[in-house]
Amino acid sequence: MDIEVIPLGGYNEVGRNMTVIRVGGEAVIFDMGIRLDRIIIHEDAVMEKLSAEELQRMGAIPNDEPIASLGLKVKAIVVGHGHLDHMGALFKLAGKYKCPIIATPFTIELVKDELNMGKGRGQRLPNQLIVLKTGQTMELSKDLKLEFVRITHSIVQSAIAALHTPKGVIVYANDFKLDNTPVIGGKPDYERLRGLGEEGVIALISECLGAGEETKTSSETIARDMLRDHLFGLENERHGIIVSTFSSHTARIKSVCEFGAEMGRKVVLLGRSMEKYTDIAVRVGELKLPKDVELVGGGRDSEAALRRIMRDGKDKYLVVATGHQGEPDALLSRIARGETAYPVEKDDHVIFSAGVIPNPLNVANRYVLESKLRMQGARIIKGAHVSGHASREEHREMLAMLSPANIYPSHGPISMQGNYVDLAEAHGWKLNSQIHVSQNGIHHTLKV
Amino acid sequence: MDIEVIPLGGYNEVGRNMTVIRVGGEAVIFDMGIRLDRIIIHEDAVMEKLSAEELQRMGAIPNDEPIASLGLKVKAIVVGHGHLDHMGALFKLAGKYKCPIIATPFTIELVKDELNMGKGRGQRLPNQLIVLKTGQTMELSKDLKLEFVRITHSIVQSAIAALHTPKGVIVYANDFKLDNTPVIGGKPDYERLRGLGEEGVIALISECLGAGEETKTSSETIARDMLRDHLFGLENERHGIIVSTFSSHTARIKSVCEFGAEMGRKVVLLGRSMEKYTDIAVRVGELKLPKDVELVGGGRDSEAALRRIMRDGKDKYLVVATGHQGEPDALLSRIARGETAYPVEKDDHVIFSAGVIPNPLNVANRYVLESKLRMQGARIIKGAHVSGHASREEHREMLAMLSPANIYPSHGPISMQGNYVDLAEAHGWKLNSQIHVSQNGIHHTLKV
Amino acid sequence: MDIEVIPLGGYNEVGRNMTVIRVGGEAVIFDMGIRLDRIIIHEDAVMEKLSAEELQRMGAIPNDEPIASLGLKVKAIVVGHGHLDHMGALFKLAGKYKCPIIATPFTIELVKDELNMGKGRGQRLPNQLIVLKTGQTMELSKDLKLEFVRITHSIVQSAIAALHTPKGVIVYANDFKLDNTPVIGGKPDYERLRGLGEEGVIALISECLGAGEETKTSSETIARDMLRDHLFGLENERHGIIVSTFSSHTARIKSVCEFGAEMGRKVVLLGRSMEKYTDIAVRVGELKLPKDVELVGGGRDSEAALRRIMRDGKDKYLVVATGHQGEPDALLSRIARGETAYPVEKDDHVIFSAGVIPNPLNVANRYVLESKLRMQGARIIKGAHVSGHASREEHREMLAMLSPANIYPSHGPISMQGNYVDLAEAHGWKLNSQIHVSQNGIHHTLKV
Amino acid sequence: MDIEVIPLGGYNEVGRNMTVIRVGGEAVIFDMGIRLDRIIIHEDAVMEKLSAEELQRMGAIPNDEPIASLGLKVKAIVVGHGHLDHMGALFKLAGKYKCPIIATPFTIELVKDELNMGKGRGQRLPNQLIVLKTGQTMELSKDLKLEFVRITHSIVQSAIAALHTPKGVIVYANDFKLDNTPVIGGKPDYERLRGLGEEGVIALISECLGAGEETKTSSETIARDMLRDHLFGLENERHGIIVSTFSSHTARIKSVCEFGAEMGRKVVLLGRSMEKYTDIAVRVGELKLPKDVELVGGGRDSEAALRRIMRDGKDKYLVVATGHQGEPDALLSRIARGETAYPVEKDDHVIFSAGVIPNPLNVANRYVLESKLRMQGARIIKGAHVSGHASREEHREMLAMLSPANIYPSHGPISMQGNYVDLAEAHGWKLNSQIHVSQNGIHHTLKV
Repeated sequence: MDIEVIPLGGYNEVGRNMTVIRVGGEAVIFDMGIRLDRIIIHEDAVMEKLSAEELQRMGAIPNDEPIASLGLKVKAIVVGHGHLDHMGALFKLAGKYKCPIIATPFTIELVKDELNMGKGRGQRLPNQLIVLKTGQTMELSKDLKLEFVRITHSIVQSAIAALHTPKGVIVYANDFKLDNTPVIGGKPDYERLRGLGEEGVIALISECLGAGEETKTSSETIARDMLRDHLFGLENERHGIIVSTFSSHTARIKSVCEFGAEMGRKVVLLGRSMEKYTDIAVRVGELKLPKDVELVGGGRDSEAALRRIMRDGKDKYLVVATGHQGEPDALLSRIARGETAYPVEKDDHVIFSAGVIPNPLNVANRYVLESKLRMQGARIIKGAHVSGHASREEHREMLAMLSPANIYPSHGPISMQGNYVDLAEAHGWKLNSQIHVSQNGIHHTLKV
Repeated sequence: MDIEVIPLGGYNEVGRNMTVIRVGGEAVIFDMGIRLDRIIIHEDAVMEKLSAEELQRMGAIPNDEPIASLGLKVKAIVVGHGHLDHMGALFKLAGKYKCPIIATPFTIELVKDELNMGKGRGQRLPNQLIVLKTGQTMELSKDLKLEFVRITHSIVQSAIAALHTPKGVIVYANDFKLDNTPVIGGKPDYERLRGLGEEGVIALISECLGAGEETKTSSETIARDMLRDHLFGLENERHGIIVSTFSSHTARIKSVCEFGAEMGRKVVLLGRSMEKYTDIAVRVGELKLPKDVELVGGGRDSEAALRRIMRDGKDKYLVVATGHQGEPDALLSRIARGETAYPVEKDDHVIFSAGVIPNPLNVANRYVLESKLRMQGARIIKGAHVSGHASREEHREMLAMLSPANIYPSHGPISMQGNYVDLAEAHGWKLNSQIHVSQNGIHHTLKV
Repeated sequence: MDIEVIPLGGYNEVGRNMTVIRVGGEAVIFDMGIRLDRIIIHEDAVMEKLSAEELQRMGAIPNDEPIASLGLKVKAIVVGHGHLDHMGALFKLAGKYKCPIIATPFTIELVKDELNMGKGRGQRLPNQLIVLKTGQTMELSKDLKLEFVRITHSIVQSAIAALHTPKGVIVYANDFKLDNTPVIGGKPDYERLRGLGEEGVIALISECLGAGEETKTSSETIARDMLRDHLFGLENERHGIIVSTFSSHTARIKSVCEFGAEMGRKVVLLGRSMEKYTDIAVRVGELKLPKDVELVGGGRDSEAALRRIMRDGKDKYLVVATGHQGEPDALLSRIARGETAYPVEKDDHVIFSAGVIPNPLNVANRYVLESKLRMQGARIIKGAHVSGHASREEHREMLAMLSPANIYPSHGPISMQGNYVDLAEAHGWKLNSQIHVSQNGIHHTLKV
Repeated sequence: MDIEVIPLGGYNEVGRNMTVIRVGGEAVIFDMGIRLDRIIIHEDAVMEKLSAEELQRMGAIPNDEPIASLGLKVKAIVVGHGHLDHMGALFKLAGKYKCPIIATPFTIELVKDELNMGKGRGQRLPNQLIVLKTGQTMELSKDLKLEFVRITHSIVQSAIAALHTPKGVIVYANDFKLDNTPVIGGKPDYERLRGLGEEGVIALISECLGAGEETKTSSETIARDMLRDHLFGLENERHGIIVSTFSSHTARIKSVCEFGAEMGRKVVLLGRSMEKYTDIAVRVGELKLPKDVELVGGGRDSEAALRRIMRDGKDKYLVVATGHQGEPDALLSRIARGETAYPVEKDDHVIFSAGVIPNPLNVANRYVLESKLRMQGARIIKGAHVSGHASREEHREMLAMLSPANIYPSHGPISMQGNYVDLAEAHGWKLNSQIHVSQNGIHHTLKV
C-alpha cells in the first residue's frame, strides 16, 4: 500500500489551498480554497458566473484534474477551518466527488451557507456534510480514520486533521498558531499532538507563512489588550467610533462587544458577512452576545441602523463594520464615500483591528479608503491586531511534538517554503529525503 | 520682555537634545544629550578623553557656543528624564554654567553617577543638583518658575517640564508617551496638562519621532504580556533562558523579575549598567526587587555568577543581560563569542525585549550577534517590546490639552518634523506663524 | 515695493503645482497643475464635470482663493513645461484671470489642446496664449520682465522661468535635471544661469523631489542605451514587441522609433495621447519621425492598426503603446485583457521604459497588468528608464550657479523639502532667514 | 555509469561556491570559494591562521568531507572565474586533492597569487596549474573532457565550464550575465552555447541571484556611460576626485583610466589589490594601461603617491582607490579618517562605481565611511554601476539555448532558488524530476 502526497493548490502561491493524500486506491482531499486576488484582478469577474474551468485557468481555484486522471476514489473532503482560501472553492469543485465534506460544527455551518444560501445559491451539492468535533475520530474506510485535534487560529473551531493510515499518521496543519491564552476556546491540545508524534507521524503538511519570523506569534489576548488601549486610552467620549475587523474573527468581535458594553456604548455589528459569521458563532455556542449588542445584516438593515445611530447620537454607539481592507463595496468604504446616513465627521475614530493583507490591490484600496477618511477629519488608529499564523518558534515546537518522518511545507511558494526548510534542517531533517519542497501538481510518493 | 526659543541639538538629527529658552535676560537650558552613533563611528573615540570642542566637531554633543555669544544668564539646566540622548553631555558642558541641574529623584541619581562615578570620574562639577518631583514647582528667578508634570516614557520618573514666565507657560515635552496602564508609576497627569492649557501655553517643544505613526503607542502592559507569552508559551523547562532589554527600562526589568519568580527560576541581573539603573530605581523607591532576584554588577562579579549558574544548572536561572543592540563589549555578545563560563547550547532561549535602534551600526552588530547565537543553536525570540514614544494620536491629544500658541517639533530632522506639522496643520495651526520648523542654532523669537 | 512668495499648490504634496509671486501690486502665477491621484481615488469623478470648487475640495487642483482675497492684479500665467501636474488645472482656473498664458511653443500647443480640443471642449478661455522661446525675454509690465532659460527635463522645451523685478531676479526651477547629453535639444544654458546668479537672484523656487538622492541623475542617453540593450540584447526576432513609455516623453519615443528602424520593424505609435504629444512635437520641429513610423490615434484607428499588424505578422512591427502605469483604460491594459485584435502570446516582449510613479494606485494597477501579461506568457522587461528630476548633486550645482538670497523648496511635502534644506544648509544658507519651508497657502514676504 | 551532482557550498547561502560532479568513479570539482561575511563576523579571525576545519565550522569555506567519505577520485578542480567566493578556499582545500587546478589565464594568475604570494604565503600546493582558454577543450580522463565557453561577467576571462561525459554534457554556469557590448573581451559565445544544447545537456548548474529581477541586466557599457556622466557632468575642475570600484573589475578600471586621460588628469590606481588585479590583467593582455596611468601598490607606495598628489595639486589627478564597501582598512576609509597625506576637503568628489553588497556589515561600514566623508564636505556620487549577474530574461535565454534535461539553481538559498524554479516551470520543466532544489551536502543522482 503506497502513499502519495499530491499538492494541488497553495504551493506556488498564497491561497487556493488543496492537498490530496492517496493511500493505496483511496484518497482524501484536504481543503478546497480560492485565491481571492486572482478573481479581483479580473474586474468584472463574478465567481458565481464562471465555470470551474475558467476559474482554474485564472489561477483562482485549484486544478483538480489529476484526481480524475489518476482515477482516485475520494473518501472525504476535509476542511480544517472556515477561511475562504481553504473552503471557498467547494461550491465549484466538491460536487464532482461522491464523498462527504467533513468539518467542525462552526465550519460545517459556513460550508452550508456557502453551498446553499451564499454564492452557490440554487445549487444542490450531492455531498453529505458531516460534523466532526476536535477530539473526535471517525472512520473513512476500512483503512483510513480521520481525527480532529484542537488548535488555535484566527477563526474559531480550527482543527488540525490527522489521517490514520495503516502505515502511520499523516497530519495536515494548515493553518495554525500556538496560542495558550485564546479569547475563545481552549489552547492547543498539546497532549494529543505529542501522542500523535509517539504513534508515528509519517508526513506533516504544514503552513509556512511565518516560518521566517524569529519569534512566537502573539496571543489573541495581546490584540484584545491593544484594542482596549485604543478604545480606552484616547479621548472619544463625544465622537463616533467605528471598529473594523475580520467578520470571521469571532474572538476579536467578542472583545469589541465586551469593550463597548464597558464603555456604555451600544455595539452594532453591521454588514452581511458580519451577520453570517457572528450568527453562526452564536448558534454553535462559541459566542454569547452581550444582550445590548445588535447584530444587523447588510443592505437596508444596515442603512436603517445607521440612520437610527445618527438620530440617537453617534456617541452612544460603537459601530463594528466590514471593510478593513478597503474593499470598495464594503460598508466602511461606503461610509467614507458619504453614501450612508452616517457621515464621517471631524475627530471620529476609525479603528483598524486588522493588518493589510500584503497584496498591492489591498494596499491601494486601503490608501483610497484612508485618504477619504483623513480628508474628512477622521482619526485613524491602526495596529490592534496579531497574526493567526505560527511564527518560527511555534513551528519548531510543532516539529518537536510530532517528529514527522516527512515534511511538506505548504501555503506559499518555494521562496517561503525555504524558510521552513531552513528551520527543519537545523534540527536534522534532510532536504529531498525527509523534507520536500513542492509545487502544485507535482506528486510525491512517501517512502514508508 | 521678549522670549526666544534657541534650538541647539536634536533638530538636525535624532540625538543630542538641547534647547534653550531665553526670557528677557535670563535663560533656562532643557536637556544636554549626546548623539551616540557619532561617537561609535569613530572607532577609537573614548568620550572621556575628548574635549567638548572635539565632541562638538564630531556632532556628538550640542554646540552651546550661542549661549556664550548671546551673553545669556542661565538660571537652570533642566533634565526631563534619564536617557543619555537627553543628559549624556552634562559632564562635558554643564560645568560652564553657574546654575543648578534640576531633575526628578531617579534622574538626579543618574546625573550624580554620570558626573561622579561614571565617565566623568575625578571631575567635580560645580553645579548644584536639585531634586524636583513631578507635581512640584520651584522658583528659578523672580520671573521664572519651573514645574514638573507626571508623564510616561520608557524610563521611570519622566517629567514634562513647564516653565512659567510672565507671558505664559512654555512646555518641554521631550520625550513622552500617553500610557494609561504603565507597569511602574501613575498614568500621565492629564488634569494638570489641561490646567496648563487653560493657563495659556505660549510654546510647546515636543518630540516628533512617532508623529507619522497612525496609531496610539501600545502601553507598557502590552510589552509585559508579550514577554509573558514568550516565557510561558514555549517549551523552555530544560534550557537556558537569557532576556536582554534596556538596563534603563526599570518597568520591563520588573516584569522579567516577576515572571522569573513565577517560573520558579532565580533571576540574575547582569552587567554594570544593569546594576546602576536597577540599584538607583530600588533606592528611589520605584522598584522592589523580589527577594530571590540577584543584582550582579559587571566584570568579575558577572563572570562568577555565570560560573555558579553553570554549576547549579541553567534551567534554574533566568539571566537578564545587557547587549540587545549587539554592542560588541556587552555581556550578551561576550556570551555569544564563548568568552564567558556560560556557553550557548542548542535550544537555549535568547529573548530580545527591545527593538533595534534604527541605525546601520546597530543593525550590523545585531546581525553579528544573532548569526553567532544561531550557529550555536540558540532559539532567538524577538518582538516583546513597545516604543516609549508617542504616536500620532497621542500627539493629537497633547495638542488638544495644551492648545499651545506656538509649536516647535523636536527630536528629529525636518523630514520628521514635517509629520508633526501635518498633524498640527490639520487642527488649524499655521506653519511659520504658529508652528515652527527648526534646525540647530537657528533661533526664533516668540511673538507674545 | 515689497515682494511676496505665495505657495498655492505642491507644497503639501507631490502634484498640483502653483506658486504666485507678488511684486508690489502686481502678480505672476507660475504653473496651475493637477494632483492626479486625488481624482483617481474618487472612482466616478470626471474632471470635466466637476466645478473648480469641487476639485479644490478634493485636493485635486490648487486653491487659488488667496489671489482674489488679496486683490492681486495678475499679469501672466507662466507654464514652465507641459506636464499635467504643472498645467492640468489651467482649464478650470485660468479663465478667471485677465492675463495671458505664456509658455514655449511645444507647451503652448499642449495648452491649446487642453483648452480647446481636450477636456475643456466647448469651453472658450479668454486668456491670450503667448509663445516665449528659451533664450527670449518679454515685458509683462513696466516693472516685470519674464525670461525663459533652456533646461532639460523629461519633456521637450522645458524652461526655467526668470522673473526680473526691480529688486532682483526670481527664478522658478520646477522641474529640471542637468542633462548634458539629452537626446533632443541642447544641454542646459549654464552660461545664462550663471549670468542670472551674477545679476542677483533674490529668490529661487526649486523642485526638491530628488534632493535626497546622493548622485547625479543619469542622462537620457543612458535610458536610450538601456532600451537599446533590451531590444537588441534578447532573442525577439519571431515575437511581438510592445514598448510602453510616457506619451509626453518625445525623446524616448524618438529613440524607440530609431531602434525600430534599425531592427527592420515598422514602428506603430498607438493611443490618443501618444498621437497628441507626438504630433505636436513634430509640428514644432522637435521630432522628425523616420518615414516608416506610423502615428495612429486611439479608438478605432488603433484597433484597425492592431488588426493589420496581426495580419502582416507581429514580428514585422514594434508597437509603442500607452499604459505603463497599468491604467485600466489604456491600450496596454486592454491588450492584456484580450480586448483587442492583438493577443498576448507566449514569449511576446513587453518592455516598460518607465518607472512606476510611487503611489499605491499605480502599484496596484501595474500588478494587475503584469499578472495578466505573465499569465499569458509574455516576457516582461523593466528598467529602461531614468528620472527627469535633478538629484542632490545637480541641485548643488544649481545653487552654486544662482547663489540665491532666498530659497523655497517646492514640489513636495515638508518631509521632502527637508532634504533640500539639508543640502542648502551644508553650503551656508540658514533656515527661516534664507531657506524657507512652505505649505500651501502660507505666504512669505521677501526681505529684499 | 551513474552521475551525481554533489552540492557542497553556495546552496544554503550566497558565497563559498563549490559543486562536485561524480561520473562513475571519477569526480570533478567546480569552484572552491569563501563566504566572506562569516569571517568578518569573527572580528579577530585571520584566515591564514585558521585551519580548514575551523573555517568549515564557521561556515566560511565549504565542507568537502563528503568527497573523502565517498572515496571519490578527483580528476580536476575547475575555477570558472577569479572572484573569491569561487576560488578563495583553494589554498585551504585544494592541496588535499592530487589533481590539477584548471582555469583561464587571468584566473590562473590569480590562483598563483593566492597560493604563492598571497594569503597562503610559504605554502606549496602540490596541484598542477593548467591554463585552458575559452574556446578550448582538454581531456581530464578517458571519459571526461572539459571545455571552456566564453561568457561575460564582472571580471575578465570568465568561462562557462562544460563537462563532456559519456552520457551528455554538464554545464556549470556560475556566474554570468549576457552582455553583448562588454567593455573588455567579446560577447558570450552564443553559437557554442547553442551547440552544447544540440549535443545534449544533461545538467545545468546555474547561478540564480538575479532570477527574480524582471529585466535584462544592463551591459557594462551602461555603467561606463553613467560613470562618464558623473565625471563630465558635474563641476569638478578645481577639486579632488576619487573613484572607488572593485579592484577585480578590470573593465571598469579601464573606463576610469580612459576618462581620466580625456579629462587631462593623471590617473593613479592605489591599493595592494588594485595593483594585483590590474597588473595581472595587463600581463595576460586584457588591459593596456594608457601611458600616463600610474599603478601604485598599497602601504608606503600609496602614501608616497598621495603626498605627491597633494604637492602637485589634487586637481591634476584622478585617484582610483579601494574601499567602496567601507572596509575599515581600505584606502578610502583611511583617507576619510584623515590618516593619509590626502585630506578630504570641501567639494571633493567621491564617486562610488559599485553597489553595496547586501549585508548588514557592509551597510554599516558604508554608513561610517559616508558619514565621515560628508562631515568633511565631500560630494558623494553613487550609482555608476551595473550588476555582473544575469537577470530573469538572460536566464530564460540560457535555458532556451541549452535546453538542459536537469537544472540545479545555485549561488543562493532555497528562497532564491525558488525564483529560478518559477522561471523554469513556466517553460515546462518539472520540479523534482527535472529542476532540483538543493542544499549543501544533499547529493542528487541524475536520471540519465
